[in-house]
Amino acid sequence: MVYDVIVIGSGPAGLAAAIYAQRARLSCMVLEKEYISGGQVVNTYEVDNYPGLPGIGGFELGMKFREHAEKLGAKFTNIEVRHVGLEDEGRIKVAYTDGEEFRARALVLAMGAKYRHLEVPGEKQLTGMGVSYCATCDGAFFKGRTVAVVGGGDVAVEDALFLARGCAKVYLIHRRDELRAAASLQEQLRKCENVEFIWNTEVKEIAGDDHVECLRLREKTGGTERVLDVDGVFIAVGTIPNTEIITKLLHLDPYGYVAAGEDGITEIPGIFAAGDLRTKQLRQIVTAASDGANVITSVQNYLNAL
Amino acid sequence: MVYDVIVIGSGPAGLAAAIYAQRARLSCMVLEKEYISGGQVVNTYEVDNYPGLPGIGGFELGMKFREHAEKLGAKFTNIEVRHVGLEDEGRIKVAYTDGEEFRARALVLAMGAKYRHLEVPGEKQLTGMGVSYCATCDGAFFKGRTVAVVGGGDVAVEDALFLARGCAKVYLIHRRDELRAAASLQEQLRKCENVEFIWNTEVKEIAGDDHVECLRLREKTGGTERVLDVDGVFIAVGTIPNTEIITKLLHLDPYGYVAAGEDGITEIPGIFAAGDLRTKQLRQIVTAASDGANVITSVQNYLNAL
Repeated sequence: MVYDVIVIGSGPAGLAAAIYAQRARLSCMVLEKEYISGGQVVNTYEVDNYPGLPGIGGFELGMKFREHAEKLGAKFTNIEVRHVGLEDEGRIKVAYTDGEEFRARALVLAMGAKYRHLEVPGEKQLTGMGVSYCATCDGAFFKGRTVAVVGGGDVAVEDALFLARGCAKVYLIHRRDELRAAASLQEQLRKCENVEFIWNTEVKEIAGDDHVECLRLREKTGGTERVLDVDGVFIAVGTIPNTEIITKLLHLDPYGYVAAGEDGITEIPGIFAAGDLRTKQLRQIVTAASDGANVITSVQNYLNAL
Repeated sequence: MVYDVIVIGSGPAGLAAAIYAQRARLSCMVLEKEYISGGQVVNTYEVDNYPGLPGIGGFELGMKFREHAEKLGAKFTNIEVRHVGLEDEGRIKVAYTDGEEFRARALVLAMGAKYRHLEVPGEKQLTGMGVSYCATCDGAFFKGRTVAVVGGGDVAVEDALFLARGCAKVYLIHRRDELRAAASLQEQLRKCENVEFIWNTEVKEIAGDDHVECLRLREKTGGTERVLDVDGVFIAVGTIPNTEIITKLLHLDPYGYVAAGEDGITEIPGIFAAGDLRTKQLRQIVTAASDGANVITSVQNYLNAL
């Protein structure tokens, strides 16, 4: 079967696209490699910036979006897309998996983004043994212990705030002398007595045998090195777009994002981008959801013109 | 006092902007001329396309957004802005009302849009006496009666569907031979036995003494005129942006919309546009809310660079 549209990914962008595709009565299949929908949202302890649902849990929000789409009849397949190709002079878009192939006249890329790594010795080996990228997932294991958060954006500060509620001591390590995070978050964090800021400092190594024992830090201006004893380290240094499956198909910007405006139109007719993986000013749940709505209007316009 | 930012209007765009302004710890005042927030949403019977809140009432959704903003500490003044001006070489933006003046370093225009009129004889005189622009507001008055809906978009079909549940007979009058509305809506409407489509036809006059009695219709291709007896007529021919207060300040596009991309940046530094009043592909609650989030990032960037 050839669908009207295939959506790859079921975070807020993909799920909003599924909702709007159902309302437009397009035949649509959503392909999701994880067992649950929501994308990065599912790892967020509390979401307070999606208008209308203050203070909702990230997992719960992901579920609400998925249930909304399913209530309207959206169809999902739990499968990982390996790459995307074109057939019939580009008229048919194909999502290749290890087994099945999915064909459609239009394709929405909504694979989102993932955690950026520090790329330092010990990081990979100790992941899951004290190295974490999700405070809200793993923070509870460190109750009463000493941890470090690495980063300076909203997520780093949110992670530090979350950890400060349960840990004995939280270090926030940032390579610059000021945070990028929202002022409101910074204010909150400065009020935490068990949080200590370590400025202008990079993590050079994460050390420990079968679990994290310490970090080797390097002060950027003077070059002074020191060892900081911690039981865990939470790395919150940003995300990178999940664009691996389309690198051969589309030109990506230097950061790996798909060049597309709010209408989601890419350089290939019939292929659209929605959510965190496209070039945009602000990556939030509501902006991803908006992309999902917009992109289906673009899909309809494209299909109507065929 | 000079605020960081003033937001004019409290529909989904203005309320999302208020939410994000609070999270960014900006001093912010929202100016709203109506007694309730939500904009056009409050007149919508059921909203099924705001991801995460399927089938919610429009009034309830408006309340949820407003409560979310207030929970975060957003401030509102119930007052009508008459026009907007600049002071101090443009550094200060002023919202003038009949009494008070509000000053800020940045201004978010989020006044939304309003119902377009047919501009035919009888329309103005009989408004509220059988002529309505909001089926979900006034439809209940026509239970068991005969009504017409004029228009071919989503709202027209949604109105007809709503009215068909309570009225004896519903005519859908459209000047073209096909509807612009979403296929799913069209399908639903075609299933209604008490709905009759009148194609290629314009309403030339709405007639009646103290209430609507009939419509004078003109078939567009042949020019044939005829009279259609109805008890009410619901006009759903689109919306026009509420840009009256800024016509002297900003150049508007031929339809009256403010030229601005998803970042909301207009031709005047420090003045931003969010929601239905800006040029955009798709005007929906979720795209307006996304604008509200985006525009506050732009405001922060602007203020940081001052």
